[in-house]
Amino acid sequence: MQVVPPALDRLIENLSRLPGIGRKTATRLALNILRRPAAQAIELAASLTALHSAIQLCSCCFTFSESDPCAICADPKRNGEIVCVVEQPGDLMAVEKTGSYRGHYHILHGVLSPLDGIGPEEIKVRELLARVASGAVREVLIATSSTVPGEATASYLIDRLQGAPILLTRLACGIPMGMDIKYADKHTLAKAIEGRATAR
Amino acid sequence: MQVVPPALDRLIENLSRLPGIGRKTATRLALNILRRPAAQAIELAASLTALHSAIQLCSCCFTFSESDPCAICADPKRNGEIVCVVEQPGDLMAVEKTGSYRGHYHILHGVLSPLDGIGPEEIKVRELLARVASGAVREVLIATSSTVPGEATASYLIDRLQGAPILLTRLACGIPMGMDIKYADKHTLAKAIEGRATAR
Ligand SMILES: [Zn+2]
Ligand SMILES: [Zn+2]
Repeated sequence: MQVVPPALDRLIENLSRLPGIGRKTATRLALNILRRPAAQAIELAASLTALHSAIQLCSCCFTFSESDPCAICADPKRNGEIVCVVEQPGDLMAVEKTGSYRGHYHILHGVLSPLDGIGPEEIKVRELLARVASGAVREVLIATSSTVPGEATASYLIDRLQGAPILLTRLACGIPMGMDIKYADKHTLAKAIEGRATAR
Repeated sequence: MQVVPPALDRLIENLSRLPGIGRKTATRLALNILRRPAAQAIELAASLTALHSAIQLCSCCFTFSESDPCAICADPKRNGEIVCVVEQPGDLMAVEKTGSYRGHYHILHGVLSPLDGIGPEEIKVRELLARVASGAVREVLIATSSTVPGEATASYLIDRLQGAPILLTRLACGIPMGMDIKYADKHTLAKAIEGRATAR
């Protein structure tokens, strides 16, 4: 007996592939979407369809952007001599919200995680080393999360950048251990940026 | 400074319109969708686009269905003389999962809630009374949630059906007060169906 109509089941299946959405939550969401006007579902669908084609990676900092270079890299009022290294574009958004940072960024798109087969070649490490080697960078502020893989990635980057003629800094203590920086409140994060310390 | 690309912001906006999804969760979901292959976003979009056009209400029981009558109403092996009255299609799915019920359903699509302007005319009460008046029904099992509006709706239905030559039953106690029946575990729900009591 097919109790859930196939078209509804297909949506529930697709929604339950999203992180943190189980089958029960997916069912609740799908039924809610079905109860609302079709126009809302169509608009959500359109925004999903347009997403990947509209957005690319900035070829300089590798954040998600509709233009290349991105708005931050292209902004003449920002200081391109300081580069804040973060794990993901969501971390960049969190730092921007503090209003405390006027430099550029470098998005790693991941952290080192040998058990998952993620080494330096799987994330944007080579590209960071090349930016530093180009001579345009005077400070690298490492802002990976204070999680085990985040710390391991920071250590690896410090090691690789040890010999470069730059200031190497890290976010100040202030972010609770184990917290992803995306979830830090903006005042704590602003404090951590202001009090950032030399990494060596 | 536009930090979030417009195409991403549009998706975040649309996702945060879903129930229980705040701006932070919507951002996390949208970034996750963006990191995965475009094909997955396109498939999710397609399932959203197809949803409303594929699904209609069964003209007999008013559940969501791709056919009319729905698979349950059309099934000759099910007993159409007993009708289980539930608030929403999600409740029908929960009852079906128990495997304890072989009758038909009637979906109210809501509960009475005078403060929200939802009276009997806003939900499928008239249609239920018409089904009973047609003479084809011998038992009406009221399975609204044991919430305040669910109980008020049950009382109203019992009152309206008082004079009809039918057996009027309710789910047995067993479902904790205040719990929506969608979230009851299937064993508790099966027990409540087996032990259902006469309503008057
Ligand atoms: Zn950029
Ligand atoms: Zn039906």
